[in-house]
Amino acid sequence: MRFTGLSAFPHTPLRDDAVDEGAYARLVDRLAAAGVDSITSLGSTGSYMYLDREERRRAARTAVRNAGPVPVMVGIGALRTSQVRALADDAQEAGASAVLLAPVTYQALNDDEVFGLFEDVTAGLSVPLVVYDNPGTTHVTFSLDLYERIAALPNVASIKIPGVPADPAEAAARVRAIRDRIPSTVTVGVSGDAAAATGLEAGCDAWYSVLGGTLPRPAVTITRAALAGDHAAATAEHTRLAPLWALFAELSSYRVTAAIAEHLGLVAPDSLPRPVRGLDADARTRVIRVVDELQLAD
Amino acid sequence: MRFTGLSAFPHTPLRDDAVDEGAYARLVDRLAAAGVDSITSLGSTGSYMYLDREERRRAARTAVRNAGPVPVMVGIGALRTSQVRALADDAQEAGASAVLLAPVTYQALNDDEVFGLFEDVTAGLSVPLVVYDNPGTTHVTFSLDLYERIAALPNVASIKIPGVPADPAEAAARVRAIRDRIPSTVTVGVSGDAAAATGLEAGCDAWYSVLGGTLPRPAVTITRAALAGDHAAATAEHTRLAPLWALFAELSSYRVTAAIAEHLGLVAPDSLPRPVRGLDADARTRVIRVVDELQLAD
Repeated sequence: MRFTGLSAFPHTPLRDDAVDEGAYARLVDRLAAAGVDSITSLGSTGSYMYLDREERRRAARTAVRNAGPVPVMVGIGALRTSQVRALADDAQEAGASAVLLAPVTYQALNDDEVFGLFEDVTAGLSVPLVVYDNPGTTHVTFSLDLYERIAALPNVASIKIPGVPADPAEAAARVRAIRDRIPSTVTVGVSGDAAAATGLEAGCDAWYSVLGGTLPRPAVTITRAALAGDHAAATAEHTRLAPLWALFAELSSYRVTAAIAEHLGLVAPDSLPRPVRGLDADARTRVIRVVDELQLAD
Repeated sequence: MRFTGLSAFPHTPLRDDAVDEGAYARLVDRLAAAGVDSITSLGSTGSYMYLDREERRRAARTAVRNAGPVPVMVGIGALRTSQVRALADDAQEAGASAVLLAPVTYQALNDDEVFGLFEDVTAGLSVPLVVYDNPGTTHVTFSLDLYERIAALPNVASIKIPGVPADPAEAAARVRAIRDRIPSTVTVGVSGDAAAATGLEAGCDAWYSVLGGTLPRPAVTITRAALAGDHAAATAEHTRLAPLWALFAELSSYRVTAAIAEHLGLVAPDSLPRPVRGLDADARTRVIRVVDELQLAD
């Protein structure tokens, strides 16, 4: 797969505490039909850390089976290196085109330990790996030195970075600082959806997108415009979605997109893994109002 | 079991990425012989989050079998409520006298979600539960309001709090502020070993102890003295161990006690779950020097 363009991160919906494989298959099929560049199964939005090995194996297979020609990347993060390696094996057997690895922590890890995890896992891979820098969930802070060490490992194809600064010049400087330290073959993808347009225009190759996993159409619009250099169109669509970015910031993109998927009937109610709860009624009403006002429902 | 005195938290040693059940049985036996008041299997020091359900089931059984008359508490924390409930069932079947639950997070949880986890889990228990407040690993901050709500649930017997302030008056005020919000039947236990003497003298009923899981003798000494009101003796032993507390702060009590257990031949080398690494050679040398100087090896 190419690690550029829009990678969409769908939810892995639960129903009565089990993965709703039918709904998941339909979510994946819908993303492929919308023209996303890749689909990432079992990202943070896909609740990977809450699912057991068998649930993840089945979800990966469902994603590959329903994505058609669209490449599927599978999240393999876990707390123990041997668990990550087993999940990597499962993902590759399921037909994943790539794997995504965040250094999940319980005990805090130092840089040598984080590097060691990527070293141990990449050594056994036969598909490319995307480094998943997600400080909000892993509590690991990647320095430029750590990016450089890990990006030099075999099979590393891309780095999924957190949001970039809002100022375009600062964002470009940030992306350039990362690129200066990593091989030119390793792409940089932005996450933090509200920073996506800025990130793509600042030189990121890809958008690893929560929004794109539930509402692919506006995410495709932003990605295509930004990567084609059509600043006005990218900015227009990004600005149009401002009320949604505000809800993401306040209520978390994970919970907001789950509420949208539930509202649109794409997944059953109460689709998140307990102890995580869906939004309360008031918040849900606000989300639905924004979905309606921005005409995101079609 | 009574939720007072010294609860010792042993490591669950690995050998070639599998639980070394023989070594674990000997660790537990050694703690029981040292006269600790309870043994907590599968605490953070016991690497519970790195072990799968079957490994945890077997470790709990080994602990109960080797603890003799000493009550065993078993850590049941996991990311998903249904997993926690399954682990609670396993712990109770293994003969645990109590369970310990930390609200482990990947996606950040709000107070209602943390409360909901404890509500869902305590409802199904037939043994008491200790609330495990460990912000360094869970990234959850317990407010006094949250303590109050959770402590009112059925089966809640104790709260394991983080370290108290170093100043005795501030420590006492902190313990009093917690006690004012929880039923008198719920005990308060201090963790953060360097704060233990202060915590016990400030009114904590118990010490949930990393040190006690590997070197029970000095931990028993401090606990007995502090709970008997022998301030001088508690302070003397605590002060004597200052070089050890410094190493805990710098290198983490988890890694330091693993290095000590490995040095003493209680567990095989490289006993921590990858990606966590043991201390490097320099740090290990410093730890061994302190163990020798303080005569902790017998």
